[in-house]
Amino acid sequence: MSKVLVTGGAGFIGSWLCEFLLEQKHEVTCVDNLFSSSKNNIRHLLDNKNFEFVRHDVCEPFHFEVDQVYHLACPASPVYYQKNPVRTIETAFLGTRNALECARNTGAKLLITSTSEVYGDPEQHPQQEDYWGNVNPVGDRSCYDEGKRIGESLAVSWSKQYGTDVRIARLFNCYGPRMALHDGRLIPNFILQQMKYEPLTIYGDGHQTRSFCYISDTVDALVKLMNLRITSILKSSLGIPVPIINIGNPDERMIKDVAFDIISAFGGEGCIIHAPLPKDDPKQRCPDITRAKRILGWEPKVSYSDGMAKTIASYMSKGFR
Amino acid sequence: MSKVLVTGGAGFIGSWLCEFLLEQKHEVTCVDNLFSSSKNNIRHLLDNKNFEFVRHDVCEPFHFEVDQVYHLACPASPVYYQKNPVRTIETAFLGTRNALECARNTGAKLLITSTSEVYGDPEQHPQQEDYWGNVNPVGDRSCYDEGKRIGESLAVSWSKQYGTDVRIARLFNCYGPRMALHDGRLIPNFILQQMKYEPLTIYGDGHQTRSFCYISDTVDALVKLMNLRITSILKSSLGIPVPIINIGNPDERMIKDVAFDIISAFGGEGCIIHAPLPKDDPKQRCPDITRAKRILGWEPKVSYSDGMAKTIASYMSKGFR
Repeated sequence: MSKVLVTGGAGFIGSWLCEFLLEQKHEVTCVDNLFSSSKNNIRHLLDNKNFEFVRHDVCEPFHFEVDQVYHLACPASPVYYQKNPVRTIETAFLGTRNALECARNTGAKLLITSTSEVYGDPEQHPQQEDYWGNVNPVGDRSCYDEGKRIGESLAVSWSKQYGTDVRIARLFNCYGPRMALHDGRLIPNFILQQMKYEPLTIYGDGHQTRSFCYISDTVDALVKLMNLRITSILKSSLGIPVPIINIGNPDERMIKDVAFDIISAFGGEGCIIHAPLPKDDPKQRCPDITRAKRILGWEPKVSYSDGMAKTIASYMSKGFR
Repeated sequence: MSKVLVTGGAGFIGSWLCEFLLEQKHEVTCVDNLFSSSKNNIRHLLDNKNFEFVRHDVCEPFHFEVDQVYHLACPASPVYYQKNPVRTIETAFLGTRNALECARNTGAKLLITSTSEVYGDPEQHPQQEDYWGNVNPVGDRSCYDEGKRIGESLAVSWSKQYGTDVRIARLFNCYGPRMALHDGRLIPNFILQQMKYEPLTIYGDGHQTRSFCYISDTVDALVKLMNLRITSILKSSLGIPVPIINIGNPDERMIKDVAFDIISAFGGEGCIIHAPLPKDDPKQRCPDITRAKRILGWEPKVSYSDGMAKTIASYMSKGFR
């Protein structure tokens, strides 16, 4: 049993992670400011004697005596992260800085969740971890994309300078039950529209691609990455002391096909409208997961069709909440 | 007469800027922590009744009642910025944040000096302001390159969100008298080696290029950029509320030629050795200054040969200090 801190633990991924860690009999402290997350995601955990919820904003320093820190806290959907771009950048930078400080002070291992958005609108396909990315530093998405990049830069510099044990997961679109229905992300957005008999909104022509990873696969990878022993051989093979690993499902889909699949899952009746593509929207996104396979012995197990079926079923049983 | 704050005012560019602003009869407050700069750079200004030096680290909040803020403070040479990479990132982020907060609180206009390093190892040549760059987010240079990029992201988000009047200068290699001799930058490094009858060290084969802008031209551009009126027409033509402008001299030179020129200036006797190219070193760098010409009516006036002659003469008269 370890003492584990999960920042952003009341978010979509965070709440699944907390649940999994509790099943593994760990003592879990969940830190969250509930800005883009919800206490509903963790309500079923509140009575667990090994679980504690602390309402705290990671932009302010924090200190918990733990063995492991999973740092997930950051608004991750454009609807939230563009609401207050300055705060998004501050959360990405100060939040990561405070997580590093906490890990340094306690000697805890730290896992930081980064994102495929660090690749921007990629010119390499699929994206490998060594690819430097193609990000607009001053565009509408830069508060998040550049915020996540500086978080990585800081973490690597920090680990070199202070020896803190850090690992970074670059998450590609993760989906599943408990994703906020109203935060504008693709799959919940389509499902919500379909449930309300509204047309599904496709931005652009729908030929742009994303790769969707089911939540249980993502959580599995995160835990494996936390448990990875960072040896000096590993460090020298990577060239930096911090393993950076793509976590995603390489099963790449066109947005228009996802829309059709959701309409089909609801019986085949539905319609689609097109809206202009937002500026700097990535045209394609697919992880190269060679490194995850090699270093973590991980690859996704839940197929797209199974994952979508589970997700749709969960929303149907819950309704519009 | 305006009240002007110059952060990093005891640095190479900062001290020239302070001097110029004092000549223009402004009241100048120079803020500096003297980490990579020196009081020697501003000693001749200390008796000027319109000048004040305040020793302060921009990572800590500051507030001065001024009309204009030139935010230059940040170690800018690899020797200094790689000494403490975490502190470099913090200076880039927190320093810019504190400068923005100061400008917001006082209503001052803010000019932020960014760098051609935001383009990384560019795949576009010459570099235009709209180019997104090619930067390694986790390499040895990333503390500076990504630090400067997040400074820009934050400034643009901040200006959108709070209406603060911000402008950003992307400076390409600036040189001239008063550059620190020992900070490892190319021109002073070559001159120092030549003055000591040591071989000049060229990293790599010397075919990589840089574009050098003489200090008086850089200062001229900064002042013109500060005085630029940011109209709504300008904003909409740029697509963002913050003008971002390359400041540099497009007269591109190969490193090996710079070495030969310096040896020639000292009479033609000298020798050259080669050392391995540092990781992620940019292969070419040349500003497209179309925007500076159009918007500021600025272009460099001091030729490479005149600038080098002045620089060499100043070091020869000063010796090895």
